[in-house]
Amino acid sequence: MRRQLLLSNRTVGLVPTMGALHEGHLSLMRQAAADNTDVFVSIYVNPTQFGVNEDLASYPRTWDSDVAKIEQLNEELSRQGEKYGRVTAILAPTSKVMYPTLPPSSEVDGDGSFVTITPISKKLEGASRPVFFRGVATVCMKLFNIVCADRAYFGQKDVQQTVVIKRMVKDFHIPTEIKIGATVRESDGLAMSSRNVYLGSRRRAVGLVLFNALKAAEDAYLSGKNNRNEILDAANRMTRKVLGEQQALKPAERALYEVDYISLADPDTLDELEVVDRSRGAILSGAIKMAPLEASNPGEDCGLGDGKVPVRLIDNLILTPRV
Amino acid sequence: MRRQLLLSNRTVGLVPTMGALHEGHLSLMRQAAADNTDVFVSIYVNPTQFGVNEDLASYPRTWDSDVAKIEQLNEELSRQGEKYGRVTAILAPTSKVMYPTLPPSSEVDGDGSFVTITPISKKLEGASRPVFFRGVATVCMKLFNIVCADRAYFGQKDVQQTVVIKRMVKDFHIPTEIKIGATVRESDGLAMSSRNVYLGSRRRAVGLVLFNALKAAEDAYLSGKNNRNEILDAANRMTRKVLGEQQALKPAERALYEVDYISLADPDTLDELEVVDRSRGAILSGAIKMAPLEASNPGEDCGLGDGKVPVRLIDNLILTPRV
Repeated sequence: MRRQLLLSNRTVGLVPTMGALHEGHLSLMRQAAADNTDVFVSIYVNPTQFGVNEDLASYPRTWDSDVAKIEQLNEELSRQGEKYGRVTAILAPTSKVMYPTLPPSSEVDGDGSFVTITPISKKLEGASRPVFFRGVATVCMKLFNIVCADRAYFGQKDVQQTVVIKRMVKDFHIPTEIKIGATVRESDGLAMSSRNVYLGSRRRAVGLVLFNALKAAEDAYLSGKNNRNEILDAANRMTRKVLGEQQALKPAERALYEVDYISLADPDTLDELEVVDRSRGAILSGAIKMAPLEASNPGEDCGLGDGKVPVRLIDNLILTPRV
Repeated sequence: MRRQLLLSNRTVGLVPTMGALHEGHLSLMRQAAADNTDVFVSIYVNPTQFGVNEDLASYPRTWDSDVAKIEQLNEELSRQGEKYGRVTAILAPTSKVMYPTLPPSSEVDGDGSFVTITPISKKLEGASRPVFFRGVATVCMKLFNIVCADRAYFGQKDVQQTVVIKRMVKDFHIPTEIKIGATVRESDGLAMSSRNVYLGSRRRAVGLVLFNALKAAEDAYLSGKNNRNEILDAANRMTRKVLGEQQALKPAERALYEVDYISLADPDTLDELEVVDRSRGAILSGAIKMAPLEASNPGEDCGLGDGKVPVRLIDNLILTPRV
């Protein structure tokens, strides 16, 4: 099939997803449709990137609405005429197709056929999710081989994923160009995520602290600061202040969280930086864990799972080179 | 370039080698030339498949004679007319091309971008060479991506390698067909190997014990035996007998060895078998380590390295299904 597309001068852009599609995914599909005649969207909740105690079973699965969103996107694209491609395939493989030999393992020492990209997979998200990027790299290698895409699209929201995938493509000479789409945000700035449905309005409002903390740190960089402490202090002051405000409220009014990390790292190696080289820039990223609500109010929107599901939020800003 | 070949209806067969070409490699190239218009030969001594204490530095490197052999093969192929392809490219990449980001690590826990295929990589050869198949799978994944071959050719001599590569191709959906060429042997039956140059005539003659032991076990299977003990006893009797004969000789006349393993394993999983299922067959394989010569005689051909290099020999026979 791929050979036929090539022979007829068509190009393929792959958008790998785990479904639960939101505007972030659709924006990647639009970008892919601008670059290629054919957009292939994969929808596969990949078990090997979930640790044994993570939320594989509860990860949102919304097949019908995913397909409806893709059909609606195709209508939108067709109104724009010939300069845009279309989504011409949705890949929804079974795990037996993706992991043909052994049942996929989520154990750190589990057996299987895996791609590992270290040390960058051990940092940041990898520190608390040791099998995560092994799973991501492995499933992407399979998808790249199945689709043989000219280009593949990933969102900047998962910035470490973009670094790992770009490294994999470089080190393994994969003949697919990796394109990164900007993080799509809600009107107040919250980064879109399939897991946001678990937040509910109270935790959603408080969860914005992560983005605001990163923006404060970015402001420090833009105002000329290069030192780790000067940049990260701006973020850490913000997360401490908001947490203090919440702790002063009653259980039925507040949303508590723990900061997992706020990182200032090299854009290629993800090594933590003491000083930003302004000719290289840096990645400013963070993760916070929103605790379950302690108490709820009658009629309150507590999100899918009634506010009982802890939700880990991640976000990042690229500090672009400025010389 | 690959796209141009595809558009002009040409097909590519890849023969990955580490150089030091012998008849075994040439036979794979002939097979590739029979199946494809273009044969690409890679010559790269891959550091990540050598453990830290293995023979990377001393592995034979014979570039000029390798190229001469390929040129001679092309002349032979051209005499056969249009039905055979030609070797149209020799790939001799540097390690900076093959490992663009980090210096390639040979440590078991070393960092890098790797493909791991377990548990089959831990068995047999992998038991004594823990990084070997990680290195092999990794470099082959890179070569497959660089060449985008229609077919890739491996010798049955390295039978575990063929099992690992076929598993990798299946699990990662690599769009390259794997073809296995029969083991090419010297006239007395010794399997050809780039490392045979280190043997010298005395160890070469004694080293034939491995092939003879495997043949004795195969005879047991062919005569109707299915049980592990009945099949492997035939091989073990042979290796013990020959070792006993050698030990009775004087140091300047004998060549000693240790048996690393004699295995009777499932053809796909490499699990050791208690009983052979005659509808599936089995892989009979072994490894022996020829010790350095204890003493040599004036004018004796002791091989490259004067008989001081220990040489590990491997060989195998496929017990084909017989119902």
